Amino acid sequence: MNKYQKVSVGEEARTELHDKLCLTGAEISINTLPQGTGVPFVHAHKQNEEIYGILNGEGVSVIDGERIALKAGDWLRVSPSANRQFFASENSALQYVCIQVKENSLEGYTMTDAVVSA
Amino acid sequence: MNKYQKVSVGEEARTELHDKLCLTGAEISINTLPQGTGVPFVHAHKQNEEIYGILNGEGVSVIDGERIALKAGDWLRVSPSANRQFFASENSALQYVCIQVKENSLEGYTMTDAVVSA
Repeated sequence: MNKYQKVSVGEEARTELHDKLCLTGAEISINTLPQGTGVPFVHAHKQNEEIYGILNGEGVSVIDGERIALKAGDWLRVSPSANRQFFASENSALQYVCIQVKENSLEGYTMTDAVVSA
Repeated sequence: MNKYQKVSVGEEARTELHDKLCLTGAEISINTLPQGTGVPFVHAHKQNEEIYGILNGEGVSVIDGERIALKAGDWLRVSPSANRQFFASENSALQYVCIQVKENSLEGYTMTDAVVSA
Protein backbone atom coordinates (compact mmCIF):
# COMPACT_ATOMS: atom_id res chain seq x y z
CA MET A 1 0.00 0.00 0.00
CA ASN A 2 1.17 3.55 -0.68
CA LYS A 3 2.36 5.44 2.37
CA TYR A 4 -0.33 8.02 1.77
CA GLN A 5 -3.25 8.78 -0.48
CA LYS A 6 -5.01 12.10 -1.09
CA VAL A 7 -8.35 13.15 -2.52
CA SER A 8 -9.99 16.57 -2.90
CA VAL A 9 -13.66 16.87 -1.94
CA GLY A 10 -15.98 19.70 -2.97
CA GLU A 11 -19.69 20.15 -2.36
CA GLU A 12 -20.80 16.86 -3.89
CA ALA A 13 -23.90 15.30 -2.29
CA ARG A 14 -21.79 12.46 -0.87
CA THR A 15 -18.18 11.37 -1.20
CA GLU A 16 -17.13 8.08 0.44
CA LEU A 17 -13.43 7.90 1.27
CA HIS A 18 -12.99 4.21 2.21
CA ASP A 19 -12.10 3.00 -1.27
CA LYS A 20 -10.61 6.27 -2.55
CA LEU A 21 -8.09 6.42 0.31
CA CYS A 22 -7.76 2.66 0.96
CA LEU A 23 -8.93 3.11 4.55
CA THR A 24 -8.70 0.07 6.84
CA GLY A 25 -9.83 1.49 10.19
CA ALA A 26 -12.75 3.73 9.25
CA GLU A 27 -15.25 4.67 6.61
CA ILE A 28 -15.51 8.43 6.21
CA SER A 29 -18.05 10.26 4.09
CA ILE A 30 -18.37 13.97 3.28
CA ASN A 31 -22.01 14.90 2.80
CA THR A 32 -23.83 18.04 1.67
CA LEU A 33 -27.59 18.37 2.24
CA PRO A 34 -29.17 21.28 0.31
CA GLN A 35 -31.18 23.72 2.40
CA GLY A 36 -34.60 22.45 3.40
CA THR A 37 -33.70 18.78 2.82
CA GLY A 38 -32.73 15.83 4.99
CA VAL A 39 -31.48 12.28 4.82
CA PRO A 40 -34.64 10.37 3.73
CA PHE A 41 -34.35 7.55 6.28
CA VAL A 42 -33.58 6.87 9.94
CA HIS A 43 -30.69 4.52 10.69
CA ALA A 44 -28.71 2.89 13.47
CA HIS A 45 -25.66 0.60 13.39
CA LYS A 46 -24.80 -2.93 14.42
CA GLN A 47 -21.28 -2.34 15.73
CA ASN A 48 -20.02 1.01 14.46
CA GLU A 49 -19.72 4.17 16.52
CA GLU A 50 -20.27 7.26 14.35
CA ILE A 51 -18.72 10.67 14.77
CA TYR A 52 -20.25 13.59 12.88
CA GLY A 53 -18.48 16.91 12.35
CA ILE A 54 -20.35 19.90 10.93
CA LEU A 55 -18.13 21.52 8.29
CA ASN A 56 -20.43 24.27 6.98
CA GLY A 57 -23.95 25.55 7.45
CA GLU A 58 -26.67 24.74 9.95
CA GLY A 59 -29.15 22.00 10.58
CA VAL A 60 -30.65 19.56 13.05
CA SER A 61 -30.07 15.96 14.01
CA VAL A 62 -32.75 13.79 15.57
CA ILE A 63 -31.28 11.08 17.79
CA ASP A 64 -33.77 8.66 19.34
CA GLY A 65 -36.41 11.36 18.96
CA GLU A 66 -34.34 14.17 20.51
CA ARG A 67 -33.70 17.24 18.33
CA ILE A 68 -30.16 18.67 18.45
CA ALA A 69 -29.34 21.97 16.74
CA LEU A 70 -26.15 21.85 14.67
CA LYS A 71 -23.80 24.49 13.32
CA ALA A 72 -20.31 24.56 11.79
CA GLY A 73 -17.73 23.46 14.38
CA ASP A 74 -20.03 21.03 16.21
CA TRP A 75 -18.80 17.46 16.69
CA LEU A 76 -21.05 14.64 17.81
CA ARG A 77 -20.54 11.00 18.82
CA VAL A 78 -23.53 8.69 18.30
CA SER A 79 -23.69 5.22 19.88
CA PRO A 80 -24.25 2.32 17.46
CA SER A 81 -27.80 1.48 18.58
CA ALA A 82 -29.17 5.06 18.56
CA ASN A 83 -31.54 5.94 15.72
CA ARG A 84 -30.32 9.02 13.86
CA GLN A 85 -31.36 11.34 11.05
CA PHE A 86 -29.84 14.61 9.80
CA PHE A 87 -31.48 17.66 8.22
CA ALA A 88 -30.23 20.94 6.76
CA SER A 89 -32.01 24.04 8.02
CA GLU A 90 -34.61 25.84 5.92
CA ASN A 91 -32.13 28.66 5.27
CA SER A 92 -28.80 26.91 4.88
CA ALA A 93 -27.20 23.83 3.38
CA LEU A 94 -25.51 21.46 5.83
CA GLN A 95 -22.10 19.98 5.03
CA TYR A 96 -20.80 17.33 7.42
CA VAL A 97 -18.27 14.57 7.76
CA CYS A 98 -19.45 11.20 9.06
CA ILE A 99 -16.79 8.87 10.51
CA GLN A 100 -17.69 5.21 11.10
CA VAL A 101 -15.37 3.19 13.36
CA LYS A 102 -15.83 -0.13 15.15
CA GLU A 103 -16.89 0.54 18.75
CA ASN A 104 -14.13 -0.25 21.28
CA SER A 105 -11.55 -0.84 18.54
CA LEU A 106 -9.08 1.87 19.56
CA GLU A 107 -6.16 0.75 21.72
CA GLY A 108 -3.26 3.20 22.21
CA TYR A 109 -3.41 6.70 20.74
CA THR A 110 -1.43 9.91 20.60
CA MET A 111 1.40 9.60 23.16
CA THR A 112 0.97 5.84 23.60
CA ASP A 113 0.92 5.12 19.87
CA ALA A 114 3.11 7.85 18.38
CA VAL A 115 6.81 7.55 17.56
CA VAL A 116 8.38 11.02 17.59
CA SER A 117 11.55 11.23 15.54
CA ALA A 118 12.62 14.88 15.50
CA MET B 1 -22.98 5.73 28.20
CA ASN B 2 -25.17 8.50 26.76
CA LYS B 3 -26.55 7.78 23.31
CA TYR B 4 -24.79 10.85 22.00
CA GLN B 5 -22.42 13.59 23.08
CA LYS B 6 -21.74 16.96 21.43
CA VAL B 7 -18.99 19.56 21.63
CA SER B 8 -18.46 22.83 19.76
CA VAL B 9 -14.95 23.54 18.47
CA GLY B 10 -13.63 26.95 17.39
CA GLU B 11 -10.17 27.99 16.27
CA GLU B 12 -8.33 26.73 19.34
CA ALA B 13 -4.77 25.49 18.68
CA ARG B 14 -5.84 21.90 19.42
CA THR B 15 -9.00 20.23 20.69
CA GLU B 16 -8.90 16.50 21.42
CA LEU B 17 -12.29 14.80 21.20
CA HIS B 18 -11.58 11.34 22.67
CA ASP B 19 -12.40 12.23 26.27
CA LYS B 20 -14.89 15.02 25.50
CA LEU B 21 -17.07 12.73 23.36
CA CYS B 22 -16.25 9.40 25.11
CA LEU B 23 -14.91 7.97 21.85
CA THR B 24 -14.02 4.25 21.83
CA GLY B 25 -13.04 3.66 18.20
CA ALA B 26 -11.00 6.74 17.33
CA GLU B 27 -9.13 9.72 18.65
CA ILE B 28 -9.99 12.87 16.73
CA SER B 29 -8.30 16.24 17.10
CA ILE B 30 -9.13 19.60 15.54
CA ASN B 31 -5.97 21.63 15.01
CA THR B 32 -5.23 25.19 13.89
CA LEU B 33 -1.68 26.16 12.88
CA PRO B 34 -1.20 29.94 12.55
CA GLN B 35 0.21 31.14 9.23
CA GLY B 36 3.93 30.55 8.87
CA THR B 37 4.07 27.88 11.59
CA GLY B 38 4.19 24.10 11.69
CA VAL B 39 4.00 21.15 14.05
CA PRO B 40 7.44 21.27 15.74
CA PHE B 41 8.21 17.55 15.39
CA VAL B 42 8.02 14.66 12.94
CA HIS B 43 6.03 11.62 14.00
CA ALA B 44 4.86 8.17 12.93
CA HIS B 45 2.59 5.63 14.64
CA LYS B 46 2.89 2.10 15.99
CA GLN B 47 -0.50 0.77 14.93
CA ASN B 48 -2.79 3.69 14.08
CA GLU B 49 -3.77 4.77 10.59
CA GLU B 50 -4.33 8.54 10.45
CA ILE B 51 -6.75 10.42 8.24
CA TYR B 52 -6.31 14.20 7.89
CA GLY B 53 -8.98 16.50 6.52
CA ILE B 54 -8.18 20.13 5.72
CA LEU B 55 -11.02 22.27 7.08
CA ASN B 56 -9.74 25.77 6.29
CA GLY B 57 -6.70 27.47 4.81
CA GLU B 58 -3.65 26.16 3.04
CA GLY B 59 -0.44 24.41 3.92
CA VAL B 60 1.93 21.55 3.24
CA SER B 61 2.49 18.11 4.66
CA VAL B 62 5.81 16.31 4.43
CA ILE B 63 5.41 12.53 4.38
CA ASP B 64 8.63 10.50 4.32
CA GLY B 65 10.32 13.52 2.77
CA GLU B 66 7.71 14.15 0.07
CA ARG B 67 6.00 17.57 0.08
CA ILE B 68 2.24 17.56 -0.51
CA ALA B 69 0.34 20.82 -1.03
CA LEU B 70 -2.86 21.04 1.03
CA LYS B 71 -5.99 23.17 0.77
CA ALA B 72 -9.48 23.12 2.27
CA GLY B 73 -11.37 20.02 1.10
CA ASP B 74 -8.31 17.77 0.86
CA TRP B 75 -8.44 14.43 2.69
CA LEU B 76 -5.36 12.29 3.26
CA ARG B 77 -4.72 8.80 4.64
CA VAL B 78 -1.27 8.22 6.13
CA SER B 79 0.03 4.70 6.90
CA PRO B 80 1.17 4.12 10.50
CA SER B 81 4.90 3.84 9.75
CA ALA B 82 5.19 6.93 7.52
CA ASN B 83 6.92 9.95 9.04
CA ARG B 84 4.69 13.03 8.83
CA GLN B 85 4.76 16.73 9.62
CA PHE B 86 2.26 19.52 8.84
CA PHE B 87 2.80 23.22 8.14
CA ALA B 88 0.54 26.19 7.50
CA SER B 89 1.46 28.30 4.48
CA GLU B 90 3.24 31.64 4.86
CA ASN B 91 0.01 33.45 3.93
CA SER B 92 -2.71 31.39 5.60
CA ALA B 93 -3.51 29.52 8.77
CA LEU B 94 -4.20 25.78 8.38
CA GLN B 95 -7.11 24.17 10.24
CA TYR B 96 -7.36 20.40 10.00
CA VAL B 97 -8.96 17.39 11.61
CA CYS B 98 -6.75 14.41 12.44
CA ILE B 99 -8.48 11.04 12.91
CA GLN B 100 -6.53 8.18 14.52
CA VAL B 101 -7.94 4.66 14.12
CA LYS B 102 -6.39 1.24 14.60
CA GLU B 103 -5.22 -0.09 11.23
CA ASN B 104 -7.37 -2.98 9.93
CA SER B 105 -9.93 -2.54 12.73
CA LEU B 106 -12.97 -1.80 10.53
CA GLU B 107 -15.23 -4.75 9.76
CA GLY B 108 -18.64 -4.01 8.19
CA TYR B 109 -19.63 -0.46 7.29
CA THR B 110 -22.48 1.47 5.69
CA MET B 111 -24.83 -1.08 4.11
CA THR B 112 -23.30 -4.06 5.93
CA ASP B 113 -23.41 -2.37 9.34
CA ALA B 114 -26.42 -0.07 9.12
CA VAL B 115 -29.93 -0.88 10.33
CA VAL B 116 -32.40 1.28 8.40
CA SER B 117 -35.70 1.74 10.21
CA ALA B 118 -37.76 4.17 8.16
